Amino acid sequence: MTATSSTSDAIGQPPGVVVPVDRLRACVLRALAGSGIGADAAAAQADMLIEGNLRGRPSHGVQRLPTLIQRIRAGLAQATQKPDLNWRTESLLVVDGRRGLGPVVGTVALKAAIERCQESGVVIVAMRNVNHLGMLAPYVESAARQGRIGIGFTTSEALVHAWGGREPLIGTNPIAVGIPGAPEPVVLDMATSQISAGQIIDHRARDLPLPVGAAVDRHGVPTTDPEQAIEGALSPFGGAKGYGLGLAIELLVAALTSTATGKKVLGTLDSDHPSSKGDVFVVVDPAVADPDWNPDRFAAYLGQIRSSGSTSEDVLIPGDGARARRARAMADGITLPTDLWAAIRELAAGEDTRR
Amino acid sequence: MTATSSTSDAIGQPPGVVVPVDRLRACVLRALAGSGIGADAAAAQADMLIEGNLRGRPSHGVQRLPTLIQRIRAGLAQATQKPDLNWRTESLLVVDGRRGLGPVVGTVALKAAIERCQESGVVIVAMRNVNHLGMLAPYVESAARQGRIGIGFTTSEALVHAWGGREPLIGTNPIAVGIPGAPEPVVLDMATSQISAGQIIDHRARDLPLPVGAAVDRHGVPTTDPEQAIEGALSPFGGAKGYGLGLAIELLVAALTSTATGKKVLGTLDSDHPSSKGDVFVVVDPAVADPDWNPDRFAAYLGQIRSSGSTSEDVLIPGDGARARRARAMADGITLPTDLWAAIRELAAGEDTRR
Repeated sequence: MTATSSTSDAIGQPPGVVVPVDRLRACVLRALAGSGIGADAAAAQADMLIEGNLRGRPSHGVQRLPTLIQRIRAGLAQATQKPDLNWRTESLLVVDGRRGLGPVVGTVALKAAIERCQESGVVIVAMRNVNHLGMLAPYVESAARQGRIGIGFTTSEALVHAWGGREPLIGTNPIAVGIPGAPEPVVLDMATSQISAGQIIDHRARDLPLPVGAAVDRHGVPTTDPEQAIEGALSPFGGAKGYGLGLAIELLVAALTSTATGKKVLGTLDSDHPSSKGDVFVVVDPAVADPDWNPDRFAAYLGQIRSSGSTSEDVLIPGDGARARRARAMADGITLPTDLWAAIRELAAGEDTRR
Repeated sequence: MTATSSTSDAIGQPPGVVVPVDRLRACVLRALAGSGIGADAAAAQADMLIEGNLRGRPSHGVQRLPTLIQRIRAGLAQATQKPDLNWRTESLLVVDGRRGLGPVVGTVALKAAIERCQESGVVIVAMRNVNHLGMLAPYVESAARQGRIGIGFTTSEALVHAWGGREPLIGTNPIAVGIPGAPEPVVLDMATSQISAGQIIDHRARDLPLPVGAAVDRHGVPTTDPEQAIEGALSPFGGAKGYGLGLAIELLVAALTSTATGKKVLGTLDSDHPSSKGDVFVVVDPAVADPDWNPDRFAAYLGQIRSSGSTSEDVLIPGDGARARRARAMADGITLPTDLWAAIRELAAGEDTRR
């Protein structure tokens, strides 16, 4: 039985393989287990990486595994450390992740916040010294599925220019919001750059031009040439407004987590530096604000929005797209570049002497 | 002595008059005082309206005075009511504004949050049954000047279409963020629509086309014709991402304040309906998260951003533009459309029998 199948090699499409989710998960787990990670931590980390691929965000998916394993070997990511949870007040939780894995620390902190805010109404979690969380969507979605409103902000390596500027000085700084809803929560998760650094690299590999307005060259001039963009900077989404939002997130997160800003933010894309970015969750229990709160109350309004296009497929609610992609990938498998899949199998084989 | 002077009547520019700030303030105060408003409430309301003009956001300025006075006369805005402040927990303040004036209720609630968060670290304020707050910038800036991070969200009448949709179903839902800084705070305040409804009306008056991508006609087709746009909808800024952010704010605010969504949001532009929008403040004291917190810490980073353009004027930090416009207007006066200035003087004269 062959567990993978080659994808059709369409023009401009790099060759890839379709890997069943279970097969991918087993390989990622073996690769992580070999690095001396306990089963629970490995499962949390593997699931969060795979979640990026499932939801159609491969930049946050298993392509990060090789660097992550290098970070574990270098002691920059420490899977056996327990995070230090410091409740400064009833509703302000400061977390020192002690170089822990993002999904491990993030999940522990989020769980504490979700529990506490039933009493306190709101909890802000300020996390530092934590490795990459992965996509923020699964965290805020988890909060929403437990009846809370979840908001997440994070900083990242400086890749985005200021509006009117030339130099990459701001992270791609995503914001995510999860709102309880019935039957499904509303889940927004978006970078404040127009496209991701991964998409530029992907366009270069496929020899395709970038979307207009997505990047500038090193002189600050808009470019659609991936080579020029790599030497330049990503553009914020939505012009000056997206720049303002990305910068506000950079400062907000740095202020609350005592982490770095601009070019001093390191450690999610490299295997040389401790993580110096920060992550913030805001978790609110709407039932504390309003005893009559009911997540059903938005159903009619969301239905109105869904049917406000010319056809029934024109308008999506945030979260719809990722949910559909996830369902398809669970059934059909995840498409990976051939070389990445080879690298993951090698890591799994090399690390597991029982194989 | 003539207190006003006519502006040059440039092509496409409606005739306007330049009014000194003191003169404008005195007239607005007289107009409000005649409606039976106490001196403190009138001052808070007048200052916040004028702040819109000073910062270059006339849609939030004194052009709202005539409708506001109609709302006061109709009992929809009640200047003498005290808001009901209900602390659900140490850090969650639910405010029933009892039809109070926005600046009065907003200022009282913000002050309570700023004080409390020194103890609690964070306070969320959920306000309903309040008239229009005005711009959010002065509130979050006030928090930042007192050492707090201030975030504001508000809902508004449905003017914006969903991405892919035709119908206006989402408010222009602004987000504002104030971050302490030295010497000046960082102050972001932006609608999630690309332009304001006021700008469409202004373009129609001047017979100018709208910016590309700012609006759609009633069939959902992008248009630069102000007439077509008025029958259609405003576009979100930044495409699908701005839509997602605006919708997240619509739901977040409605959930926490038990207020309306979509077309049921009324009462900031009309003189017939109680205010059914909501407002949310999040106030955080960074010194509670980090005892070594110092607002100076961002000075070098912000300097780097300011100098990241080709010339020293290419890049602004959020708040710079409004601060510069404010300083100029304080010195030179505020330009108002001739008919608006006549209407304000009439309201001031008609309402003040001592004049």
